[in-house]
Amino acid sequence: MAINETSPGAQAPGTSNASGYGTVDGELLDVLSQIVGADNLSTGDAVREQHGRDESYHPSVPPDAVVFCTSTDQVSAVVRACADRAVPVVPFGTGTSLEGHVAALAGGVCVDVSRMDKIIQVNAEDMDVTVQAGVRRKALNEYLRDTGLFFPIDPGADASIGGMTATRASGTNAVRYGTMRENVLSLTVVMADGRVIRTARRARKSSAGYDLTRLFVGSEGTLGVITEVTVKLYGIPEAILSAVCPFPDLESAVNTTILTIQSGIPVARIELLDEAQLDAVNKYSGLDCALTPTLFFEFHGSDAGVHEQVENVKAIAQEFGADDFQWATKPEDRNKLWQARHDAYYAAIALRPGCRGIATDVCVPISRLAECILETRKDIDASGLCAPIVGHVGDGNFHVIFVVDPDDAEELKKAEEVNERMVLRAIAMEGTCTGEHGIGYGKMDFLTAEHGDAIAAMRAVKLALDPQNTMNPGKVIRV
Amino acid sequence: MAINETSPGAQAPGTSNASGYGTVDGELLDVLSQIVGADNLSTGDAVREQHGRDESYHPSVPPDAVVFCTSTDQVSAVVRACADRAVPVVPFGTGTSLEGHVAALAGGVCVDVSRMDKIIQVNAEDMDVTVQAGVRRKALNEYLRDTGLFFPIDPGADASIGGMTATRASGTNAVRYGTMRENVLSLTVVMADGRVIRTARRARKSSAGYDLTRLFVGSEGTLGVITEVTVKLYGIPEAILSAVCPFPDLESAVNTTILTIQSGIPVARIELLDEAQLDAVNKYSGLDCALTPTLFFEFHGSDAGVHEQVENVKAIAQEFGADDFQWATKPEDRNKLWQARHDAYYAAIALRPGCRGIATDVCVPISRLAECILETRKDIDASGLCAPIVGHVGDGNFHVIFVVDPDDAEELKKAEEVNERMVLRAIAMEGTCTGEHGIGYGKMDFLTAEHGDAIAAMRAVKLALDPQNTMNPGKVIRV
Repeated sequence: MAINETSPGAQAPGTSNASGYGTVDGELLDVLSQIVGADNLSTGDAVREQHGRDESYHPSVPPDAVVFCTSTDQVSAVVRACADRAVPVVPFGTGTSLEGHVAALAGGVCVDVSRMDKIIQVNAEDMDVTVQAGVRRKALNEYLRDTGLFFPIDPGADASIGGMTATRASGTNAVRYGTMRENVLSLTVVMADGRVIRTARRARKSSAGYDLTRLFVGSEGTLGVITEVTVKLYGIPEAILSAVCPFPDLESAVNTTILTIQSGIPVARIELLDEAQLDAVNKYSGLDCALTPTLFFEFHGSDAGVHEQVENVKAIAQEFGADDFQWATKPEDRNKLWQARHDAYYAAIALRPGCRGIATDVCVPISRLAECILETRKDIDASGLCAPIVGHVGDGNFHVIFVVDPDDAEELKKAEEVNERMVLRAIAMEGTCTGEHGIGYGKMDFLTAEHGDAIAAMRAVKLALDPQNTMNPGKVIRV
Repeated sequence: MAINETSPGAQAPGTSNASGYGTVDGELLDVLSQIVGADNLSTGDAVREQHGRDESYHPSVPPDAVVFCTSTDQVSAVVRACADRAVPVVPFGTGTSLEGHVAALAGGVCVDVSRMDKIIQVNAEDMDVTVQAGVRRKALNEYLRDTGLFFPIDPGADASIGGMTATRASGTNAVRYGTMRENVLSLTVVMADGRVIRTARRARKSSAGYDLTRLFVGSEGTLGVITEVTVKLYGIPEAILSAVCPFPDLESAVNTTILTIQSGIPVARIELLDEAQLDAVNKYSGLDCALTPTLFFEFHGSDAGVHEQVENVKAIAQEFGADDFQWATKPEDRNKLWQARHDAYYAAIALRPGCRGIATDVCVPISRLAECILETRKDIDASGLCAPIVGHVGDGNFHVIFVVDPDDAEELKKAEEVNERMVLRAIAMEGTCTGEHGIGYGKMDFLTAEHGDAIAAMRAVKLALDPQNTMNPGKVIRV
């Protein structure tokens, strides 16, 4: 049995630690081992350390044990065993979240679903697919290639569909295809007591009862463990055109975006990279873009439809002084361009070797986007920090990646202050403290600033579905 | 004071009736009168009778009193007064629901929001608008006309935006623009204890906490009273084309729909009327369509885009033996066509003077639509009932309107049986027991059949947000 007997918190069965939670003791480890098999249970330091952190600056807070499940039944049995002992459960997909979502703040058992990587059923005629939660977005699209269908949601990382659901992820295509909120049809969820529910059926719409699907989308593992996901698919467009267009300044790039959206042009992607981000991407991904604020575009549709969109967007860009559209016509050039965009976070971090990234995002109504970005850029410049801006601007959503020296307390403090000002600025503009990264434990105070009394309703829902507060405790909502 | 002293349930203050609820006594009526003014409180029989029924066959179950509120503050004070006395609260918009949603099954106070008819703020640049819950969809679109924007969701009735939110309504445009689920950005809600929350801000996307907005969309007044709604708007398309196309049989019409959707053609409307429904519509709305299964289409887009869509749909229809597209090119012809479609329910009822309509709807994955409709048509025909089929077939959603003699017990029983078979058929096909009408108290058993163990999660949420079960009790979920 792969149990490290020196595991922290190993106590006599039935005892509980100071926080009121049960402990992961030898008795529970035996039970877990029987459920998943000894090879799929680990209490080794390296495995626990790796499961206590995501891709963010948040330090690793390791769970007491990690179980690797392969089925909903296994997850159910594990959660039930933990519930019976009031032991926390932290779900883990690929660990690519950005606000400490997987940190085991109260210890407990990490349920790793990465081996739940089966595509359960493609319903090509209904344009949907049901997958296990650990299937990654790229693997899904590779699997789908021969069907003529694709799944558009694409956060930077090659995340798991379960994790993307839990974080209400979006990405570059959201401006046209929506986020996980709009694209999940149904979920299989293991509830806090181990019971398994399916939140909906496969119909495209329904008025049958409370929208449990949307309740679990974005719940970050705090209401249950998502084990299977049914998502919408789309036909691969007849024509796809991508382009890069440099702008004289940040304002003109953002204003082009705003007018494009307000004109109802169904762009598939419209991404902003500021000078600092472009410099990072040029170096990291071998692009040779001019160092000026730039929009990356993609257009999907019929041949005629795409050309109509292009003409309309070109006309808008020209109004704002930009007319140098550089087209990526070959699929490999297009892939290189978008891989570079997806690697923006890694590219930013690479700007300062030895430094870490603090990635943050906000989202505002599109009419406030220019103001919000320009004020933020000014604030960053005044702080002297290295912090590129990159964004899904068509949604009013943008990111700042603070590239900081983790040993420089002053730099960290400055980044924290600029971040706080940016988030409060976005909220004041009727925006949100996070467009797609989620709350984790990094943005809990901002959640309160944004939602006010509605927090009480969220807390009531949390306690109703997880009365012992064992599901990913310490995230999203304080209980 | 407009209090009818013979009001049912008038008892001494503080007493409660057999169900455990407090009663609407003179003391509470005094309090309510102080909140809304004597002119805005009624206990008259006619007003109560009218507020206890919707447009369905469900009999009127009158509330003990009706208050007409004009602000969120008033609703909050009314709900608080009722909560303090454990008195049920039933929200009322226009009373156009179809499953008994407004019946005061446990008595109590009906909160009529129809006088909350202010358009609070149009944000044209962000393409959204915030309205009071009582604003009706047609009034909203008239108000918006000069902005070049419109609100697409259109259930048959001229319903209130609050009611449409509460029922998760959709309509003919949902195939392109989505339902209330996709189009509500934020809500102001009076909770069961009278507290007021706003569920979200105006950003188009957010990962900030649980999706309270979607939780209240479709909650049918059982979790709180919706008092303000922010919805997305869309640019009025450059080109709009409508057409009617008769088909040789039901199967070919449905298969044309399926292939259109599977081809990804962004039709704005694709509506099926079977022979019986077409006969009703011809008579009621003065159309002269051939008596054969027919699709009503609408196409939105640029001139070129619309023509491309039309060519593609025509080619598909021809494959299924239909090529007689009759175009409504003038706006007045288009309006007549769609008003006729919206009046389908009234037209069906008019087929048999003195009879009532039992309107029901289901929604299935599009691949199962032909099978589901054809089996249902066969079942209706075998029953000998008068029951037209009409549907938002692009979504996999269709309606049956049983036109029945309310005094003929056998006919009612037959309709109930056909309805039950249809709903169970839809659920067996991975569909839902209602695509857009909601549960009310007419479909509670079907909700259980559809959701299984997930009902327990819904019930937990209900009790967390409404621990006294005073919000529209007896609807959606049994407590």
